[in-house]
Formats: sequence, C-alpha cells, structure tokens
Amino acid sequence: MNRSIIRYILGSVLKVEAAFMLLPCIVALCYMEKEGFVYLGVGIVTFLLGMLMTHKKANSSVFYLKEGCVATALSWIFMSFFGCIPFILTGEIPSLIDALFETVSGFTTTGASILSDVEALSHCTLMWRSFTHWLGGMGVLVFLLAIIPLGGGSRINLMRAESPGPSVGKLVPKVKHTAQILYIIYITLTVVQIIFLCIGKMPLFDSLATAFGTAGTGGFGIKNDSAASYSTYIQWVLTIFMILFGVNFNAYYYILYKQFKKAFKMEEVRYYFLIIIAAVGIICCHIIDTTKSFFEALTQASFQVASIITTTGFSSIDFNKWSQTCKTVLVFLMFCGACAGSTGGGIKVSRFIILIKTIIKDLESYIHPKCIKKIQIDKKPVEHEVVRSVNVFFITFFILFAASVFVLSFEDKDLITNFTAVAATMNNIGPGLALVGPTCNFGHFDVLSKLVLIFDMLAGRLELFPLLILFHPAIWKEMFKIKHHAKCVRD
Amino acid sequence: MNRSIIRYILGSVLKVEAAFMLLPCIVALCYMEKEGFVYLGVGIVTFLLGMLMTHKKANSSVFYLKEGCVATALSWIFMSFFGCIPFILTGEIPSLIDALFETVSGFTTTGASILSDVEALSHCTLMWRSFTHWLGGMGVLVFLLAIIPLGGGSRINLMRAESPGPSVGKLVPKVKHTAQILYIIYITLTVVQIIFLCIGKMPLFDSLATAFGTAGTGGFGIKNDSAASYSTYIQWVLTIFMILFGVNFNAYYYILYKQFKKAFKMEEVRYYFLIIIAAVGIICCHIIDTTKSFFEALTQASFQVASIITTTGFSSIDFNKWSQTCKTVLVFLMFCGACAGSTGGGIKVSRFIILIKTIIKDLESYIHPKCIKKIQIDKKPVEHEVVRSVNVFFITFFILFAASVFVLSFEDKDLITNFTAVAATMNNIGPGLALVGPTCNFGHFDVLSKLVLIFDMLAGRLELFPLLILFHPAIWKEMFKIKHHAKCVRD
Repeated sequence: MNRSIIRYILGSVLKVEAAFMLLPCIVALCYMEKEGFVYLGVGIVTFLLGMLMTHKKANSSVFYLKEGCVATALSWIFMSFFGCIPFILTGEIPSLIDALFETVSGFTTTGASILSDVEALSHCTLMWRSFTHWLGGMGVLVFLLAIIPLGGGSRINLMRAESPGPSVGKLVPKVKHTAQILYIIYITLTVVQIIFLCIGKMPLFDSLATAFGTAGTGGFGIKNDSAASYSTYIQWVLTIFMILFGVNFNAYYYILYKQFKKAFKMEEVRYYFLIIIAAVGIICCHIIDTTKSFFEALTQASFQVASIITTTGFSSIDFNKWSQTCKTVLVFLMFCGACAGSTGGGIKVSRFIILIKTIIKDLESYIHPKCIKKIQIDKKPVEHEVVRSVNVFFITFFILFAASVFVLSFEDKDLITNFTAVAATMNNIGPGLALVGPTCNFGHFDVLSKLVLIFDMLAGRLELFPLLILFHPAIWKEMFKIKHHAKCVRD
Repeated sequence: MNRSIIRYILGSVLKVEAAFMLLPCIVALCYMEKEGFVYLGVGIVTFLLGMLMTHKKANSSVFYLKEGCVATALSWIFMSFFGCIPFILTGEIPSLIDALFETVSGFTTTGASILSDVEALSHCTLMWRSFTHWLGGMGVLVFLLAIIPLGGGSRINLMRAESPGPSVGKLVPKVKHTAQILYIIYITLTVVQIIFLCIGKMPLFDSLATAFGTAGTGGFGIKNDSAASYSTYIQWVLTIFMILFGVNFNAYYYILYKQFKKAFKMEEVRYYFLIIIAAVGIICCHIIDTTKSFFEALTQASFQVASIITTTGFSSIDFNKWSQTCKTVLVFLMFCGACAGSTGGGIKVSRFIILIKTIIKDLESYIHPKCIKKIQIDKKPVEHEVVRSVNVFFITFFILFAASVFVLSFEDKDLITNFTAVAATMNNIGPGLALVGPTCNFGHFDVLSKLVLIFDMLAGRLELFPLLILFHPAIWKEMFKIKHHAKCVRD
C-alpha cells in the first residue's frame, strides 16, 4: 500500500477545504458577523495541517484502485470532521455528533438536517452549510484532480472511487482535462441558475445558497419551510435546475462539442426524463382534487418529483399528507435516483436499466438456452464485469439497508420512519416520511442511530465499496506491514 | 415447443388432484356433511378431464427447461382453478376471486386467508384447505415424478422448475428415485408429527389438518386464533416440526443413509439454526417484560420465529403489538426464509449465504485485483452460473416486489400493510403486519390487489422465472408456430 500518496492527498484535501472556508469569512464580513473569526481560525489551522501533511512529497505517485478507495474514504471523513468544527465553535450546533451529522449531510449532498430552526443560524454558517453541498456534489477529489498535478497513470482510480455510476470513464484522454471540463460545466450551470434566481427577485445571498444546494443536489434550505414560501417562478427555476443537475454530465459535454445527436440519444437520459414524466403524471392525477388549478398541481408534482429523483430534497409542500400512491411513487424515486455521472445520489437510472435488461436476458435464456448475447446500452455492449458489479452493488445496498433499519429499530420508532430515514440518507436525499417527513428533522434520533445514518450517507455518496473497504482487516494489516517493512529497511 | 407433453403433464396433474379430493369426501362421510357430494362431483369431473387429456400419449417425451417451466406454471394454475371450485359450489366462499385466493394461498403454502371465521367452515372444506398445503409443500409434480413413468432424460427440468432453491440436484442418479425418497421423508415426518399431536390430546381431525399445515409450511389454521389457544406442549411440538420442515431435505437423506457427518456439516443448515437462535434471543430479551416467565417468553419467541422463518405463518400471539425491534426482526425473517430443498418459501438461507460471500469476494477484489477464487459452500466451489442466477433472482424479486407494492398502493391503505402484504405473499408466509397482521385477514383488499397477491404467491412458490416465462411473447409465438406447422404437415 502506497501510504505516502494517501497522506499527500489527505493533506491536499485539507488545504482545498481551508481555502473554501474563506467564503463564509467573506459573508461574515458583509453581514458584520463575529462568527467569521471562527471560520478564519479553523481555516488557518486546517491549512497549516494540510501544509504539514503535504510538506514531504509522496515517495511514489503510482497507486491502484485500493489506494484510490482508501484515499477517497479517508478524505471524506477528514473533510467532514474539519468541516464540522466551526458549527461547534460558533455554538450554533454545540453537540459534536449533531455537527458531524449536519456536515456529512452537507458534503454527501443529503440535506437531512438535525436543526428545527435554520433561520436562527448566522449568514456565514448558512453559507458554509450550503456550500458543502456544492463541494460534495461534484466531489472534492475531482476538484483536486482538476487543479493540482498528482502524477502517475492511475489517477482515474481516484475519480472512479469518488464519482457516481456503474462505469466511470474519461471524457477526454487526460484525467486532468476530464475533471476540468466537468467543473467548467458545473460552475457554468450554477452561475446560470444564480442569474435566473436573481431575475426572480431573490436576494443575492439567498440565490447563492439555494443554487449551491441545487447544484450539488443537496437540499439544505435557508428557510424553515424549505421552498414552500417561494414564488411559483422561483419554484419552477428550482425544478428545472434540479432536473438539469440530475442529467449525466456527459450529455452536456456532447452538447458543448456540438454532438447533439449523441447527447439526445443517451439511453439513460431518455429513461430519466421518461420516469420523471410518468411520476409527475401519476402524482398530478392524484393531487388535482386538493389543488386550485391544474397548473398548481403540476407545479407541486413537478417540484417534488424533481427534488426526490435527483435526491436534492427541497420540498414545496408536506408530501407526507399525500395519498398512499403518491407516497409510494416518491419512495420508489428515492431508490431510483438520477443519472450516473450527475451530482445526484440513489442507485442511478443506468443501474436500473442494466438490472432490467439482465432480467429480460435471463428470461430469454430459459427460452433459447444456447443464445449468448451481451446486454447493450446506447447500442454498445456492456462489459460482463460492469453487469456483475451492478448486481453486487444492488445486493450490497439492500443488505446494508436492512442492517441499518435494524439498528434504527432499537429506538422503537415506527417502521416507516426507520425505513424512509435510511432510504433518505443512503440515497442522499434528505427528507423521508412520517417522523422524518419534509416538515420534520433528524434531531430526535439518538447517538447510535445518528452514527448509523452518518455511515449510510457516506456509504451512499461513495457508492458503498470505497467506504466498506476501510472495514476490511487486510487494509489495516497492509498499512501496518509497510510501516514494519520501512522500519526494517531503516535498521 | 413440445406441446403434447405439456398437455399430458397437465392431465396427469388433474388426475392426481382428483384422487386427493377423495380425502375431503371421506371426512364428509365421517362427519355426515352434505358438502362431501360437491367434492365427489368436482373430483369426478376433474378426473374425467384429466383422463381426456392423457388419453393420447405425448408424441415425444423429451423436453427442455422451457417446457419444464411452462408445464409447471400451467399445472399450478390449473390445479388452483379446479381446487377452488368446491369452495364456490359449497357456498362457503361464494366469490370466485376469494375462492381462488384461498386455494392459491393453500397450494403455494402461503396460508393467507380471506376468511374471518374459519371455524364456520365444514370439516371437509377445512381438511381440503389444509391438505392443499401438504400437496403444494413438496410439489405436485415431484409427486407425479415419484409415481408415474414420464420417460425422457430431462425430467429433472420439471423438478428444477418446481423445487425451491438455487441449485436443485438429484440425491440419487434417477429422478424418480429422488422424488420417491423425498416423499418418503415427507410422509414419515408428517406421520410422526400427527402422533406427537395426538399424544398432546389433540383430536385426530385437528392433528391431521394441523400437521398438513405444518408439513407444507403453509399455515392455514382451523381455529380463528390460529395456534394461540393450544397448550404449551402442542405449541412446542408445532415449533419443533416447523423448524424440521424448514431444513434442507438432503440432510434427512444423509441421516437416512447414516452419513451423519455430512448432515451436520451442511453450511446452510448450520446458518439456518444460527439465525433461529439469534432471532429467538433478540425477541426473548425484548418481550420478557411483558410475559410471566422466561419460559413463556421463550415459547412465544420460538413459536413466532419458527413460524415466520419457515414461512409457515401460524401465530400464537399478536406480534403486531410487539416492539419495533421484534417486528423488524420478523420482517427480515420473512425475506430470509428457510433452507433450499425444504418445503419453506422465502429467498432461502443458501441464497443469502451466496450473496454475502459474493459481497466479501468483491471487497477482496478491490484489495487483490488479480486474485481469482470461486465462492465455496460446503467446501465445494459454487458454479459461476449459480452465483449469477442467485443475483438475478434477488434483483427480480425486489423489482417484482416494488411493482406489487405500487399496485396495492392504489387502495390508499398504509405503506406497512401494503409492504408486508406483498412480503407475506411473495415469501409464502401468510400474516404480515398492520391490517394484515396475525389477527386480521386479506378479505379487505379489492379485486385488483387480490389478483396481484395471487400472482405474487404463485411467483414466490415457483421462484419467479417459471411463472414469469409465461409472460414472454416468444413462448406464445412458439406455441402458435408449432400448431401452425402441424396444420401444414397435415395439409
């Protein structure tokens, strides 16, 4: 195990995080809030620590998938830990576990909060909270890859471990350029959204925070009622941008390079829109009696569907009060998730396409046992290894899901609360149903449950295996072995 | 497609069913019930129809997995249809859909009932209802294989389609002998249970009906309170026999041939007992405050755990009122199910062993990418094809599950009811939670929901693919093509 490169990456991540803590400092300066000093202090300490860890260059810059996973998982844990310190020091979230929950929820773009009154927070804290979404959405390691030279031919392993989807590929031959293109698209879309929000007479601060929450498909609101009090125009802007951030970014790359045909023929994106239209249709029919007009029903249905399928988690209405069919549709959308290669969470549309094609292929093998044909997506055969890893992902997901629901059941809350709390965190959504519905929060869980949910959020964002690998004894043995070996050499 | 052999098998199944209808006739004779004539009449008609269908021998007796699946699925549908006619004609369950639900629930060993007052039924109907469990438990086609010569080398395909478990093998080289051995073990265990029940001063009729329900892991009770009013002795006899019928019958075969070491080293059976002990332990700790003594808690916990994990579905207490942890454990056991090669339903312990070993293997592939090793069970490598089919089974199961919950949600019942109703039917258990809890029944669902649940029961019992294959257009095209071809030849 190449431990030195892991140390180097962790140090770099801390430096990046420290740099981004300047944003809340600037906000504090604008609003003359004393909490700004806390962010400045924490930022400086984090930066110094990062400097210390990156002072010595890595012995070797080559690393394999194993190192990629360990580096990614530890980066996210470090980042969350340092990111939560300001919450504690400003006294706005005094408990460590609560602050950690809120930060992990931010970075993993979950948007589940333990706070009942977000409007009481200072502006700089609100901004930091929303900004964690933006940073976590596209991924801090992808950011790192875009700006600093890491060397070595296996950098794609870092991207594989952090980026969502069954088969992460490069858009262009160089990883660095791929990461840059992704961030350019990301920043452009965010800026466009901010402009649209400002046109709707939303104050600049609100526009920034809301756009960060939408871009990362996070869902932290800056109002206690999430998005319910916004105008219809703002709600539609949010709906459209949530959907846009849930699209596979490859599509934007194709559009950028004028390969429109390729962009519009992406199977995953087509199914993604199909699912959205179907879900909006079903919900619209069910809620139309409770609303004043068809347009209002359409607005509410579209907003909630976009929010849940992209795993953003804003809400413009208490969907906990909707009919059972609507709630069931929303629960399904929670698991479905957005496209691979977007900032959204969940199992991903492309995985479901592969799963359903696998089932059909298997049925056909009963009828024509000798016929061997590969599953195709976008008219290209899907590698056997990808199909296998999708299957294993699905199974691991549900076993981890069941285990989490079991631990949560110790609290004797109802099954719907436990079930949707785990669904909302593992899929990085935010609100669930019943006691974790859109008008409620996660503050009522005890420490054990919160730890499990924190784990679920990280596992969901990193797509299980990069985090699970940390629990394999072999990893720690290897870390130890190299240390031991190094000692022997020195002797 | 070899249509003639399918016709021949269907006819034989009807003849077997007709023969077994003599049992309720005998019961009617003993209790002087006029309903007996209905069973006699339906039996005669069914037998004549069976004769008609088997009058002409099959053109060719060779058939493939495809024919095996279609024959099995159609057999079960035919069997359920003819089995439900007496319920309608006696007027005890006048509605066709209800009678069909009850019969399918019987044959698939689910035990979910639409009746609120089973004690009002005539003795012969009660006996027929419980006997469907016994017949469905080991499988009517396995019975057929044991008694009639079907010819051809591919009879194992019939057994594969009907017997539960990821990899159905032959105990002895001949399929016929395997089927006979299985039925001998089955009958022996049933008789032993009847003796034990009679020792506990249970009347012979009750002993027979209850033993049939236990042997098939069905769960139709003959009392309105299921097993709650039975003595502690009877409850323990039921507990032990439920667990015994959930054991892989291969273990009994080994014991029969004095290969004790092999029997006790079966990994699946070991894990099965381990899960039972763990679940009983957890539930015991949780309910001990509500019971008079530790022994009472142990009795209740063991009974419910045995009933749910073996997918029998008897209940000795309203576990709907237990704590959330207990209920969550029971929901997990619903999906877990008993051993492969037993009469129980559910996903099966062996599938979970394979799934968990797959996940561990996948984690290890991150650490040692070049290491290729096969999953092992009982120290023998599991074929790649079996692992793949287990994965696909699991995925198909959950997608079908989700679709069923969605259709049930049209009724606007709560999510727990819908979720556990589907879980209880697809896993062939019987009672669920909330509105389908142990003190309730399935009568309150509307026709659409009942149809979905009937489909789920059949899909669960036949392990999905043999039933799903009927929905593939190619099957019907092939049926048609051969007919067309035959016509051409005749011309």
